[in-house]
Amino acid sequence: MSTATGISRRRLLGLGVAGAAGAAAVGAFAGRTLPGGSAPAHTEAAGGAVPFYGRHQAGITTPAQDHLHFVAFDVITEKRGELVELLQEWTAAAARMTQGKSAGPFGPVGGDPQAPPDDTGEALDLPPSQLTLTIGFGPSLFDERFGLADRRPPALVDLPSFPGDALIPEISGGDICVQACANDPQVAVHAIRNLARIGFGRVSVRYSQLGFGRTSSTSYAQETPRNLFGFKDGTANLKLEDAAMLDEHLWVAPGDGPGWMTGGTYLVVRKIRMHIETWDRAPLAEQEAIFGRDKARGAPLTGRDEFDEPDFTKTGADGKPVIAENSHVRLAHPSRHGGARLLRRGYNYVDGSDGLGRLDAGLFFMAYQRDPRKQFIPIQMELARHDALNEYIKHVSSGVFACPPGVTDAGDFWGRALFT
Amino acid sequence: MSTATGISRRRLLGLGVAGAAGAAAVGAFAGRTLPGGSAPAHTEAAGGAVPFYGRHQAGITTPAQDHLHFVAFDVITEKRGELVELLQEWTAAAARMTQGKSAGPFGPVGGDPQAPPDDTGEALDLPPSQLTLTIGFGPSLFDERFGLADRRPPALVDLPSFPGDALIPEISGGDICVQACANDPQVAVHAIRNLARIGFGRVSVRYSQLGFGRTSSTSYAQETPRNLFGFKDGTANLKLEDAAMLDEHLWVAPGDGPGWMTGGTYLVVRKIRMHIETWDRAPLAEQEAIFGRDKARGAPLTGRDEFDEPDFTKTGADGKPVIAENSHVRLAHPSRHGGARLLRRGYNYVDGSDGLGRLDAGLFFMAYQRDPRKQFIPIQMELARHDALNEYIKHVSSGVFACPPGVTDAGDFWGRALFT
Repeated sequence: MSTATGISRRRLLGLGVAGAAGAAAVGAFAGRTLPGGSAPAHTEAAGGAVPFYGRHQAGITTPAQDHLHFVAFDVITEKRGELVELLQEWTAAAARMTQGKSAGPFGPVGGDPQAPPDDTGEALDLPPSQLTLTIGFGPSLFDERFGLADRRPPALVDLPSFPGDALIPEISGGDICVQACANDPQVAVHAIRNLARIGFGRVSVRYSQLGFGRTSSTSYAQETPRNLFGFKDGTANLKLEDAAMLDEHLWVAPGDGPGWMTGGTYLVVRKIRMHIETWDRAPLAEQEAIFGRDKARGAPLTGRDEFDEPDFTKTGADGKPVIAENSHVRLAHPSRHGGARLLRRGYNYVDGSDGLGRLDAGLFFMAYQRDPRKQFIPIQMELARHDALNEYIKHVSSGVFACPPGVTDAGDFWGRALFT
Repeated sequence: MSTATGISRRRLLGLGVAGAAGAAAVGAFAGRTLPGGSAPAHTEAAGGAVPFYGRHQAGITTPAQDHLHFVAFDVITEKRGELVELLQEWTAAAARMTQGKSAGPFGPVGGDPQAPPDDTGEALDLPPSQLTLTIGFGPSLFDERFGLADRRPPALVDLPSFPGDALIPEISGGDICVQACANDPQVAVHAIRNLARIGFGRVSVRYSQLGFGRTSSTSYAQETPRNLFGFKDGTANLKLEDAAMLDEHLWVAPGDGPGWMTGGTYLVVRKIRMHIETWDRAPLAEQEAIFGRDKARGAPLTGRDEFDEPDFTKTGADGKPVIAENSHVRLAHPSRHGGARLLRRGYNYVDGSDGLGRLDAGLFFMAYQRDPRKQFIPIQMELARHDALNEYIKHVSSGVFACPPGVTDAGDFWGRALFT
């Protein structure tokens, strides 16, 4: 037992508020063993800790937290050994940070004052905030650089061009992605920032995205939230309580592809700019027809309650379907795609304004699935071709990543099975 | 009593969770008078409502909320009457939204389905979340367009050029600013978005900025938070409990300038990009010397506790001041500026990455004060010239705004005294 496991951020805070004596104690504790060195059990709802070790990575079926900081890195070292070392260092830091500790054992206290601190400090007083860190490997990682070409899973396809795509290469792709979700944005930002700090000289930030107001519920205990069009969307999302559905639609099973991905999943990210000013001038009836849902309640236009099953056969007095042929709920519905479902985990974003008098805002869509070839791709192809919503949105970035299974214990690391 | 005052967002939520019957009831309520039509009193800590009406605008001494959405508008109508009408419409919407209601009486329910809804809907299920909306008028509003040139307060100066300024004109200035602060970013975003929607054809969004992790405490009940350098800063901030100090340093008094500003204050905003990757490689001792504070506790280097007064005369074994001559705490300290203080109310920001492998992050500095000529300008001139921190920061945007006094009742509106 060493200092490395000794000081949680919350513990430090607890000492700090004791005043000068407490502050002095922090300094003293930093240099020696603490009694009860492991982090306290955080079970508080929003501030608590999510276990890091497990069969699957956390941050996928974990009830969606309120905030996102997503990053895609380019690997700039060409040495396989340095990449593996980085994944080991990252895993150790992630195991600490998700439990509310600093990224490294000394943080901004107790280390060599002539060295940079091994934590940047801005989350020092904050609880774990249900931070999860979830890693994924992009297709480009499987090129010739690291000898991984023959380990690339067939399901990790390059996404096809979808009609209407307006992708910006600089904010698309990436060798490695990390999704940080937390109930405090400062905690999510801190985590990604420290991974970038640790990766200095080996990886470079390709792009990063902040998100808020989770747009999906991943548990029946969570209410379906609203996107920036003001609608509830993704009502039919996979939920953590549906174990059999998760096995069918989310987790990679033995035999699905290379063994290193068993227990993993695939992530598709799409930054979807919304033309919200145009939307805001569309009549309510048109907005509801486009989604196929009632705006206030989220009910399908054939029902009264959000969770009523849409009746796609029902026609109105004019003989036309009540839920239009080109409505979002119809085109995206599992019944249209042989039952294919996604675990959506997107967030709203506002990136300021676009210089043309409009807010630069939309949806940072994220969806986990067992095989993009059978799930995201056919669903998105249908939407891109027919969805009435396309008049109001534009896909500006895209990425697909293979997310390995969970880290089982302190001897394991992110992607170990890929490199051994 | 009409529907206009009838449906709070939370009330709607309460009905919504009652299921199908509740949902039907919403539809019914939307068209007729509700019993107890005024919003329920929200006194819950983070979700509650802050009173909108008062002698001063809310959002200044209000204990700093967790999230910011700041916007600067260009006025694009040239008609004074349209501008006044807009301010009246905005005030009515702000009075509603800050109390947890939709921006307009019909929101996405109960209005004409062939008209756009008068609320965009994404905050429909959310509590007030201590939303405050605070308006300010920039120097450019006092040009020839609206006949306001002779109403411009002398204290509303154009800020001078400070050494090292790297201002981007497109994200600086603005005719009108609105600061939305709330404990839920979706609520702050919703409020600004609806003001922009209402202003269509009369104003255009010049720039907008999201912020998180308030970097200042405006009440002794709030802990001093940390900026993205990981330090506690602004310990000497003005606090709402210091009524005499607020009168001296914050609120415009009769005789300070034109009468329409009495009870108002001046806001300076500066977007300060932080070179955090460079900072993260600086030794802890250097970081602490630059701030003049201990990183872990926030204590001045001559003290043990955050609120210990810095001793600028104390020297170390080497004969040099313990708190360096070019340290931030020394240069910014009120004792250096004839006691001048600010009410700082800034937020951290992360705008993704900069395309050069770095996070685009920093501090969106906001400070309220009685007279920028005596407060922000001399303090910032000293910092811009000497602060050791300048090696790690860059000011990229700037704005100064005259924030009028509060709206006293439903017959009043933002800036009424300026236009009458």
